[in-house]
Amino acid sequence: MNTQGSLYIISAPSGAGKSSLVAALVKSVPQIRVSVSYTTRAKRPGEEDGVNYNFITQAEFQQMLADGAFLEHAEVFGNYYGTSEQWVNEQLASGTDIILEIDWQGAQQVRRLRPDALCIFIMPPSREALLERLKTRGQDNDEVIARRMAEAESEMAHFVEYDYLIINDEFSQALSELETIVKSQRLKVDKQQLKHEQLLQKLLS
Amino acid sequence: MNTQGSLYIISAPSGAGKSSLVAALVKSVPQIRVSVSYTTRAKRPGEEDGVNYNFITQAEFQQMLADGAFLEHAEVFGNYYGTSEQWVNEQLASGTDIILEIDWQGAQQVRRLRPDALCIFIMPPSREALLERLKTRGQDNDEVIARRMAEAESEMAHFVEYDYLIINDEFSQALSELETIVKSQRLKVDKQQLKHEQLLQKLLS
Repeated sequence: MNTQGSLYIISAPSGAGKSSLVAALVKSVPQIRVSVSYTTRAKRPGEEDGVNYNFITQAEFQQMLADGAFLEHAEVFGNYYGTSEQWVNEQLASGTDIILEIDWQGAQQVRRLRPDALCIFIMPPSREALLERLKTRGQDNDEVIARRMAEAESEMAHFVEYDYLIINDEFSQALSELETIVKSQRLKVDKQQLKHEQLLQKLLS
Repeated sequence: MNTQGSLYIISAPSGAGKSSLVAALVKSVPQIRVSVSYTTRAKRPGEEDGVNYNFITQAEFQQMLADGAFLEHAEVFGNYYGTSEQWVNEQLASGTDIILEIDWQGAQQVRRLRPDALCIFIMPPSREALLERLKTRGQDNDEVIARRMAEAESEMAHFVEYDYLIINDEFSQALSELETIVKSQRLKVDKQQLKHEQLLQKLLS
Protein backbone atom coordinates (compact mmCIF):
# COMPACT_ATOMS: atom_id res chain seq x y z
CA MET A 1 0.00 0.00 0.00
CA ASN A 2 2.03 2.91 -1.27
CA THR A 3 0.44 6.07 0.11
CA GLN A 4 1.81 9.52 0.79
CA GLY A 5 0.77 9.26 4.45
CA SER A 6 2.33 6.93 7.03
CA LEU A 7 0.63 4.89 9.74
CA TYR A 8 2.06 5.20 13.26
CA ILE A 9 1.34 3.12 16.31
CA ILE A 10 2.32 4.78 19.57
CA SER A 11 2.20 2.79 22.78
CA ALA A 12 3.33 3.47 26.34
CA PRO A 13 2.50 2.49 29.89
CA SER A 14 0.08 4.85 31.67
CA GLY A 15 2.10 7.62 33.23
CA ALA A 16 4.75 7.80 30.48
CA GLY A 17 3.26 11.01 29.09
CA LYS A 18 2.14 9.61 25.75
CA SER A 19 -1.07 11.64 25.36
CA SER A 20 0.62 15.00 26.04
CA LEU A 21 3.42 14.16 23.62
CA VAL A 22 1.04 13.07 20.87
CA ALA A 23 -1.10 16.20 21.37
CA ALA A 24 2.01 18.37 21.04
CA LEU A 25 3.23 16.40 18.00
CA VAL A 26 0.04 16.92 15.97
CA LYS A 27 0.25 20.65 16.75
CA SER A 28 3.90 21.05 15.75
CA VAL A 29 3.96 18.92 12.58
CA PRO A 30 1.58 19.48 9.63
CA GLN A 31 -0.41 16.69 7.97
CA ILE A 32 -0.61 14.33 10.92
CA ARG A 33 -3.57 13.44 13.13
CA VAL A 34 -4.75 10.96 15.71
CA SER A 35 -7.18 8.29 14.59
CA VAL A 36 -10.77 8.79 15.73
CA SER A 37 -11.92 5.44 17.13
CA TYR A 38 -15.37 3.93 17.04
CA THR A 39 -16.77 3.19 20.48
CA THR A 40 -19.86 1.81 22.14
CA ARG A 41 -19.31 3.71 25.35
CA ALA A 42 -21.56 6.65 26.26
CA LYS A 43 -20.58 10.14 25.19
CA ARG A 44 -19.21 12.19 28.09
CA PRO A 45 -19.91 15.88 28.63
CA GLY A 46 -17.79 17.94 26.25
CA GLU A 47 -17.14 15.10 23.83
CA GLU A 48 -18.20 15.47 20.22
CA ASP A 49 -19.30 12.71 17.85
CA GLY A 50 -16.78 12.33 15.02
CA VAL A 51 -14.17 14.39 16.87
CA ASN A 52 -13.31 12.53 20.07
CA TYR A 53 -14.92 9.27 18.98
CA ASN A 54 -17.43 7.95 16.55
CA PHE A 55 -20.17 6.87 18.97
CA ILE A 56 -22.07 3.79 17.81
CA THR A 57 -24.36 1.15 19.32
CA GLN A 58 -23.31 -2.35 20.34
CA ALA A 59 -25.25 -3.71 17.34
CA GLU A 60 -23.46 -1.36 14.94
CA PHE A 61 -20.11 -2.31 16.43
CA GLN A 62 -20.81 -6.03 16.08
CA GLN A 63 -21.83 -5.49 12.45
CA MET A 64 -18.60 -3.60 11.67
CA LEU A 65 -16.63 -6.34 13.41
CA ALA A 66 -18.39 -9.02 11.35
CA ASP A 67 -17.65 -7.00 8.20
CA GLY A 68 -13.94 -6.96 9.07
CA ALA A 69 -14.05 -3.17 9.20
CA PHE A 70 -11.56 -2.79 12.05
CA LEU A 71 -7.78 -2.63 11.87
CA GLU A 72 -7.85 -3.39 15.60
CA HIS A 73 -10.41 -3.48 18.35
CA ALA A 74 -10.51 -3.98 22.10
CA GLU A 75 -12.92 -4.32 24.97
CA VAL A 76 -12.35 -2.18 28.06
CA PHE A 77 -14.72 -2.43 31.04
CA GLY A 78 -17.50 -3.79 28.81
CA ASN A 79 -17.16 -1.05 26.19
CA TYR A 80 -15.83 -1.68 22.71
CA TYR A 81 -13.32 0.42 20.82
CA GLY A 82 -12.17 -0.03 17.23
CA THR A 83 -10.15 1.63 14.46
CA SER A 84 -11.81 1.78 11.05
CA GLU A 85 -9.48 0.47 8.34
CA GLN A 86 -11.36 2.38 5.63
CA TRP A 87 -11.04 5.71 7.44
CA VAL A 88 -7.32 5.14 8.03
CA ASN A 89 -6.75 4.23 4.38
CA GLU A 90 -8.61 7.32 3.17
CA GLN A 91 -6.52 9.58 5.40
CA LEU A 92 -3.24 7.99 4.32
CA ALA A 93 -4.22 8.21 0.63
CA SER A 94 -4.94 11.92 1.07
CA GLY A 95 -1.42 12.43 2.41
CA THR A 96 -2.19 12.65 6.12
CA ASP A 97 -0.14 10.61 8.60
CA ILE A 98 -2.28 8.77 11.13
CA ILE A 99 -1.42 7.96 14.73
CA LEU A 100 -3.03 5.06 16.57
CA GLU A 101 -2.70 5.39 20.35
CA ILE A 102 -3.13 1.76 21.28
CA ASP A 103 -1.54 -0.84 23.57
CA TRP A 104 0.76 -3.70 22.61
CA GLN A 105 -2.16 -6.03 21.91
CA GLY A 106 -3.74 -3.57 19.49
CA ALA A 107 -0.31 -3.01 17.95
CA GLN A 108 0.01 -6.74 17.26
CA GLN A 109 -3.40 -6.78 15.57
CA VAL A 110 -2.53 -3.80 13.35
CA ARG A 111 0.89 -5.13 12.38
CA ARG A 112 -0.65 -8.33 11.05
CA LEU A 113 -2.80 -6.30 8.63
CA ARG A 114 -0.35 -3.45 8.07
CA PRO A 115 3.28 -4.56 8.34
CA ASP A 116 4.23 -1.09 7.08
CA ALA A 117 2.95 0.55 10.29
CA LEU A 118 5.73 2.32 12.20
CA CYS A 119 5.66 1.42 15.87
CA ILE A 120 6.94 3.80 18.52
CA PHE A 121 7.19 2.97 22.21
CA ILE A 122 7.44 5.70 24.85
CA MET A 123 9.14 4.88 28.15
CA PRO A 124 9.28 6.80 31.42
CA PRO A 125 12.86 7.63 32.48
CA SER A 126 12.75 5.52 35.67
CA ARG A 127 10.51 3.45 37.97
CA GLU A 128 10.51 6.33 40.44
CA ALA A 129 9.30 8.82 37.84
CA LEU A 130 6.63 6.39 36.67
CA LEU A 131 5.43 5.77 40.23
CA GLU A 132 5.35 9.50 40.86
CA ARG A 133 3.24 10.10 37.75
CA LEU A 134 0.86 7.24 38.57
CA LYS A 135 0.38 8.66 42.07
CA THR A 136 -0.25 12.26 41.11
CA ARG A 137 -3.22 11.28 38.98
CA GLY A 138 -5.50 11.43 42.03
CA GLN A 139 -6.03 10.38 45.62
CA ASP A 140 -5.66 6.67 44.96
CA ASN A 141 -4.84 4.07 47.58
CA ASP A 142 -1.78 1.83 47.53
CA GLU A 143 -3.66 -1.08 46.03
CA VAL A 144 -4.79 0.94 43.01
CA ILE A 145 -1.27 2.30 42.53
CA ALA A 146 0.20 -1.20 42.75
CA ARG A 147 -2.26 -2.48 40.14
CA ARG A 148 -1.39 0.39 37.77
CA MET A 149 2.32 -0.29 38.26
CA ALA A 150 1.79 -3.96 37.39
CA GLU A 151 -0.14 -2.97 34.25
CA ALA A 152 2.62 -0.53 33.28
CA GLU A 153 5.22 -3.26 33.70
CA SER A 154 3.27 -5.68 31.56
CA GLU A 155 2.99 -3.02 28.80
CA MET A 156 6.68 -2.07 29.01
CA ALA A 157 7.76 -5.69 28.62
CA HIS A 158 6.68 -5.45 24.95
CA PHE A 159 8.86 -2.52 23.90
CA VAL A 160 11.21 -4.73 21.86
CA GLU A 161 8.36 -5.42 19.41
CA TYR A 162 8.45 -1.75 18.37
CA ASP A 163 10.58 0.01 15.73
CA TYR A 164 11.49 3.07 17.78
CA LEU A 165 12.00 3.77 21.46
CA ILE A 166 11.70 7.19 23.07
CA ILE A 167 12.63 7.82 26.70
CA ASN A 168 10.40 10.62 27.96
CA ASP A 169 12.76 12.23 30.44
CA GLU A 170 12.51 15.83 29.24
CA PHE A 171 9.26 16.62 27.43
CA SER A 172 10.77 18.96 24.79
CA GLN A 173 13.50 16.43 23.96
CA ALA A 174 11.01 13.57 23.64
CA LEU A 175 8.76 15.72 21.44
CA SER A 176 11.68 16.65 19.22
CA GLU A 177 12.52 12.93 18.88
CA LEU A 178 8.95 12.13 17.84
CA GLU A 179 9.12 14.91 15.25
CA THR A 180 12.42 13.52 13.96
CA ILE A 181 10.89 10.08 13.39
CA VAL A 182 7.89 11.51 11.52
CA LYS A 183 10.01 13.85 9.40
CA SER A 184 12.54 11.20 8.45
CA GLN A 185 9.76 8.83 7.41
CA ARG A 186 8.62 11.47 4.92
CA LEU A 187 12.06 11.30 3.29
CA LYS A 188 11.69 7.60 2.46
CA VAL A 189 12.13 7.06 -1.25
CA ASP A 190 8.56 5.85 -1.87
CA LYS A 191 7.07 8.89 -0.09
CA GLN A 192 9.38 11.28 -1.92
CA GLN A 193 8.53 9.63 -5.25
CA LEU A 194 4.87 10.42 -4.71
CA LYS A 195 5.59 13.95 -3.49
CA HIS A 196 8.10 14.90 -6.20
CA GLU A 197 6.65 12.90 -9.09
CA GLN A 198 6.88 15.68 -11.69
CA LEU A 199 10.32 16.88 -10.60
CA LEU A 200 11.69 13.35 -10.83
CA GLN A 201 10.05 12.72 -14.19
CA LYS A 202 11.72 15.81 -15.64
CA LEU A 203 15.09 14.97 -14.06
CA LEU A 204 15.13 11.44 -15.39
CA SER A 205 13.59 12.04 -18.81
CA MET B 1 25.36 -7.17 13.48
CA ASN B 2 23.84 -5.17 16.29
CA THR B 3 26.12 -2.18 16.88
CA GLN B 4 25.53 1.24 18.38
CA GLY B 5 26.74 2.89 15.16
CA SER B 6 24.88 2.83 11.83
CA LEU B 7 26.29 2.39 8.34
CA TYR B 8 25.20 4.94 5.72
CA ILE B 9 25.66 4.86 1.98
CA ILE B 10 25.26 8.25 0.33
CA SER B 11 25.16 8.47 -3.46
CA ALA B 12 24.44 11.25 -5.90
CA PRO B 13 25.29 12.31 -9.43
CA SER B 14 28.26 14.70 -9.70
CA GLY B 15 26.95 18.20 -9.27
CA ALA B 16 24.23 17.34 -6.76
CA GLY B 17 26.25 18.81 -3.89
CA LYS B 18 26.84 15.56 -2.00
CA SER B 19 30.36 16.28 -0.74
CA SER B 20 29.45 19.69 0.71
CA LEU B 21 26.38 18.22 2.41
CA VAL B 22 28.31 15.31 3.90
CA ALA B 23 31.07 17.64 5.11
CA ALA B 24 28.46 19.82 6.83
CA LEU B 25 26.68 16.78 8.29
CA VAL B 26 29.76 15.38 10.03
CA LYS B 27 30.38 18.84 11.52
CA SER B 28 26.84 19.34 12.80
CA VAL B 29 26.13 15.86 14.21
CA PRO B 30 28.36 14.13 16.80
CA GLN B 31 29.61 10.55 16.44
CA ILE B 32 29.53 10.32 12.65
CA ARG B 33 32.38 10.26 10.15
CA VAL B 34 33.19 9.51 6.55
CA SER B 35 34.93 6.24 5.77
CA VAL B 36 38.61 6.52 4.87
CA SER B 37 39.13 4.42 1.74
CA TYR B 38 42.19 2.45 0.72
CA THR B 39 43.60 3.52 -2.63
CA THR B 40 46.46 2.73 -4.99
CA ARG B 41 46.50 6.19 -6.51
CA ALA B 42 49.38 8.56 -5.75
CA LYS B 43 49.05 10.94 -2.81
CA ARG B 44 48.30 14.50 -3.95
CA PRO B 45 49.82 17.60 -2.34
CA GLY B 46 48.04 18.35 0.94
CA GLU B 47 46.66 14.83 1.35
CA GLU B 48 47.53 12.86 4.45
CA ASP B 49 47.88 9.09 4.74
CA GLY B 50 45.19 7.69 7.03
CA VAL B 51 43.18 10.91 6.87
CA ASN B 52 42.12 11.44 3.25
CA TYR B 53 42.95 7.91 2.17
CA ASN B 54 45.01 4.95 3.25
CA PHE B 55 47.60 4.91 0.47
CA ILE B 56 48.75 1.41 -0.47
CA THR B 57 50.52 -0.33 -3.36
CA GLN B 58 48.83 -2.32 -6.11
CA ALA B 59 50.25 -5.50 -4.55
CA GLU B 60 48.85 -4.63 -1.11
CA PHE B 61 45.48 -3.84 -2.67
CA GLN B 62 45.36 -7.15 -4.53
CA GLN B 63 46.23 -8.98 -1.30
CA MET B 64 43.43 -7.26 0.62
CA LEU B 65 41.06 -8.05 -2.24
CA ALA B 66 42.10 -11.70 -2.18
CA ASP B 67 41.59 -11.73 1.61
CA GLY B 68 38.02 -10.44 1.16
CA ALA B 69 38.93 -7.37 3.21
CA PHE B 70 36.76 -4.93 1.26
CA LEU B 71 33.09 -4.12 1.75
CA GLU B 72 33.22 -2.64 -1.74
CA HIS B 73 35.90 -1.68 -4.24
CA ALA B 74 36.13 0.03 -7.59
CA GLU B 75 38.61 0.89 -10.32
CA VAL B 76 38.65 4.47 -11.60
CA PHE B 77 41.12 5.46 -14.35
CA GLY B 78 43.43 2.56 -13.50
CA ASN B 79 43.48 3.31 -9.77
CA TYR B 80 41.82 1.11 -7.18
CA TYR B 81 39.68 2.22 -4.25
CA GLY B 82 38.24 0.06 -1.48
CA THR B 83 36.45 0.25 1.88
CA SER B 84 37.87 -1.92 4.66
CA GLU B 85 35.17 -4.03 6.28
CA GLN B 86 37.22 -4.42 9.47
CA TRP B 87 37.71 -0.69 9.91
CA VAL B 88 34.00 -0.04 9.35
CA ASN B 89 33.03 -2.72 11.86
CA GLU B 90 35.38 -1.33 14.49
CA GLN B 91 33.96 2.17 14.08
CA LEU B 92 30.36 0.95 14.28
CA ALA B 93 31.14 -1.16 17.36
CA SER B 94 32.64 1.90 19.07
CA GLY B 95 29.37 3.79 18.49
CA THR B 96 30.42 5.92 15.52
CA ASP B 97 28.16 6.15 12.47
CA ILE B 98 30.03 5.67 9.20
CA ILE B 99 29.25 7.26 5.85
CA LEU B 100 30.34 5.66 2.59
CA GLU B 101 30.32 8.14 -0.29
CA ILE B 102 30.05 5.68 -3.16
CA ASP B 103 28.13 5.25 -6.41
CA TRP B 104 25.23 2.89 -7.10
CA GLN B 105 27.55 0.05 -8.04
CA GLY B 106 29.45 0.30 -4.75
CA ALA B 107 26.11 0.57 -2.96
CA GLN B 108 24.97 -2.72 -4.48
CA GLN B 109 28.19 -4.43 -3.34
CA VAL B 110 27.82 -3.13 0.22
CA ARG B 111 24.14 -4.03 0.51
CA ARG B 112 24.90 -7.65 -0.35
CA LEU B 113 27.26 -7.87 2.65
CA ARG B 114 25.43 -5.38 4.90
CA PRO B 115 21.69 -5.38 4.27
CA ASP B 116 21.39 -3.14 7.35
CA ALA B 117 23.17 -0.26 5.56
CA LEU B 118 20.95 2.80 5.19
CA CYS B 119 21.06 4.15 1.67
CA ILE B 120 20.48 7.83 0.94
CA PHE B 121 20.30 9.30 -2.55
CA ILE B 122 20.78 13.03 -3.14
CA MET B 123 19.18 14.60 -6.22
CA PRO B 124 19.65 18.01 -7.77
CA PRO B 125 16.41 20.02 -7.94
CA SER B 126 16.29 20.14 -11.77
CA ARG B 127 18.19 19.32 -14.97
CA GLU B 128 18.94 23.02 -15.38
CA ALA B 129 20.50 23.28 -11.89
CA LEU B 130 22.52 20.11 -12.50
CA LEU B 131 23.79 21.39 -15.85
CA GLU B 132 24.69 24.71 -14.26
CA ARG B 133 26.67 22.96 -11.50
CA LEU B 134 28.44 20.66 -13.96
CA LYS B 135 29.43 23.68 -16.07
CA THR B 136 30.74 25.87 -13.27
CA ARG B 137 33.31 23.27 -12.32
CA GLY B 138 35.74 24.69 -14.88
CA GLN B 139 36.26 25.75 -18.47
CA ASP B 140 35.11 22.49 -19.99
CA ASN B 141 33.94 22.07 -23.55
CA ASP B 142 30.49 20.89 -24.56
CA GLU B 143 31.61 17.33 -25.12
CA VAL B 144 32.93 16.98 -21.57
CA ILE B 145 29.74 18.54 -20.16
CA ALA B 146 27.60 16.18 -22.23
CA ARG B 147 29.55 13.15 -20.98
CA ARG B 148 29.16 14.29 -17.35
CA MET B 149 25.43 14.80 -17.90
CA ALA B 150 25.14 11.28 -19.31
CA GLU B 151 27.02 9.89 -16.29
CA ALA B 152 24.77 11.84 -13.94
CA GLU B 153 21.68 10.45 -15.66
CA SER B 154 22.95 6.90 -15.39
CA GLU B 155 23.60 7.40 -11.64
CA MET B 156 20.21 9.05 -11.01
CA ALA B 157 18.38 6.16 -12.69
CA HIS B 158 19.24 4.04 -9.63
CA PHE B 159 17.66 6.24 -6.94
CA VAL B 160 14.77 3.80 -6.38
CA GLU B 161 17.25 1.26 -4.94
CA TYR B 162 17.84 3.61 -2.01
CA ASP B 163 15.97 3.97 1.30
CA TYR B 164 15.84 7.76 1.44
CA LEU B 165 15.72 10.51 -1.16
CA ILE B 166 16.82 14.09 -0.56
CA ILE B 167 16.29 16.84 -3.11
CA ASN B 168 19.13 19.32 -2.70
CA ASP B 169 17.32 22.49 -3.68
CA GLU B 170 18.23 24.62 -0.65
CA PHE B 171 21.44 23.56 1.08
CA SER B 172 20.27 24.23 4.65
CA GLN B 173 17.03 22.32 4.08
CA ALA B 174 18.85 19.34 2.55
CA LEU B 175 21.35 19.35 5.44
CA SER B 176 18.54 19.41 7.97
CA GLU B 177 16.94 16.44 6.21
CA LEU B 178 20.19 14.47 6.35
CA GLU B 179 20.43 15.25 10.09
CA THR B 180 16.84 14.08 10.57
CA ILE B 181 17.59 10.71 8.98
CA VAL B 182 20.69 10.18 11.12
CA LYS B 183 18.97 11.26 14.34
CA SER B 184 15.89 9.12 13.77
CA GLN B 185 18.05 6.08 13.09
CA ARG B 186 19.54 6.53 16.57
CA LEU B 187 16.03 6.17 18.03
CA LYS B 188 15.59 2.68 16.56
CA VAL B 189 14.81 0.22 19.32
CA ASP B 190 18.01 -1.83 18.90
CA LYS B 191 20.20 1.32 19.08
CA GLN B 192 18.31 2.64 22.10
CA GLN B 193 18.58 -0.74 23.84
CA LEU B 194 22.37 -0.56 23.59
CA LYS B 195 22.45 3.10 24.64
CA HIS B 196 20.03 2.82 27.58
CA GLU B 197 20.84 -0.71 28.71
CA GLN B 198 21.02 0.07 32.43
CA LEU B 199 17.98 2.35 32.46
CA LEU B 200 15.90 -0.32 30.73
CA GLN B 201 17.16 -3.05 33.02
CA LYS B 202 16.08 -1.07 36.08
CA LEU B 203 12.72 -0.15 34.53
CA LEU B 204 11.86 -3.72 33.62
CA SER B 205 13.27 -5.49 36.67
